[in-house]
Amino acid sequence: MYRSELLPAVFVGGGVDLAAGAWRVERIQAVRGDPLPVVERVHVHVGAGTPATAAAGAWALRGVAGHARYVERAERVQLDAVSPPLDRPEATRAALIPIRKSPSWWALMQDERRAVFEERSRHIADSLPFLPRIARRLYHSRDLGEPFDFLTWFEYAPEHAGAFEELVALLRSREEWAYVDREVDIRLAR
Amino acid sequence: MYRSELLPAVFVGGGVDLAAGAWRVERIQAVRGDPLPVVERVHVHVGAGTPATAAAGAWALRGVAGHARYVERAERVQLDAVSPPLDRPEATRAALIPIRKSPSWWALMQDERRAVFEERSRHIADSLPFLPRIARRLYHSRDLGEPFDFLTWFEYAPEHAGAFEELVALLRSREEWAYVDREVDIRLAR
Repeated sequence: MYRSELLPAVFVGGGVDLAAGAWRVERIQAVRGDPLPVVERVHVHVGAGTPATAAAGAWALRGVAGHARYVERAERVQLDAVSPPLDRPEATRAALIPIRKSPSWWALMQDERRAVFEERSRHIADSLPFLPRIARRLYHSRDLGEPFDFLTWFEYAPEHAGAFEELVALLRSREEWAYVDREVDIRLAR
Repeated sequence: MYRSELLPAVFVGGGVDLAAGAWRVERIQAVRGDPLPVVERVHVHVGAGTPATAAAGAWALRGVAGHARYVERAERVQLDAVSPPLDRPEATRAALIPIRKSPSWWALMQDERRAVFEERSRHIADSLPFLPRIARRLYHSRDLGEPFDFLTWFEYAPEHAGAFEELVALLRSREEWAYVDREVDIRLAR
């Protein structure tokens, strides 16, 4: 039973017979490490009452959105000023990018992880110019015993697909990504 | 399925018929917020294959020990130099203290939570003098949808019970504890 400030979600990958409202898979690519089985649809269950697994699914990935782990107050103010909501009618493209970080990342202390994340990789600062075109939500999976540590979810309009590619390429080029040991990139449309 | 650097645990409270190896409850006290049902024994399941619940239990609390969320490298070095292991033969007293923090704590950003935790409440610095007498491990429960955010576990020898009371009183007197909205203190012996 999750408290109101926590938002659990389950992403279920399956066939065309998956529940109504599922996103259509445009491509699914293993960027690093083991792939996920190819599926035709992804259904996103957000909030209480979400199933842990779904019979129709080839896979189900669970996560919980909650408090920020690295963002500082000054950054929060900047982000809030330009972050768009999810579910905009024009945002008919989405990306689900599950990520796992290496044991060496998790062995770092908080100050060391923060330094890699922002002072050296500029994860927040260099993402800001891409807002408000791209909406995002981060789900945490690590403490759930899931195969990934994070499920990152993005939504954007078709005309901003190029900007999204640029953002993803930028993040992947930075020191932080040296600690990513599994990543799957799933592009969706509805 | 948890990766090797993560350690899941389940604490099961129940009657005298609980599994062999259970700790005997000396007292159980609601410090703030709702109590937990009074039990006679607490069994600690650590590691893979732990049950999510136990038939014999009046309650079961789950958590996962993993990476530190606030500790910086310099503090880690100091802590490692004096932190004793769990399961010392002489440590026949233990405390299980489940804690929940308020929505206002979780609405703070990382820099704000760190400032309350250490710069203003000196959680790490003022705990150091109590080591190596008191062994501890912190389990995180929040992302699991559990009723508490943390399960704190302590072990000490009977002659250090006074020192442990002093440590607990010190932490409860600080600003950090203004954000604790539920706390139960369970004292155990074996």
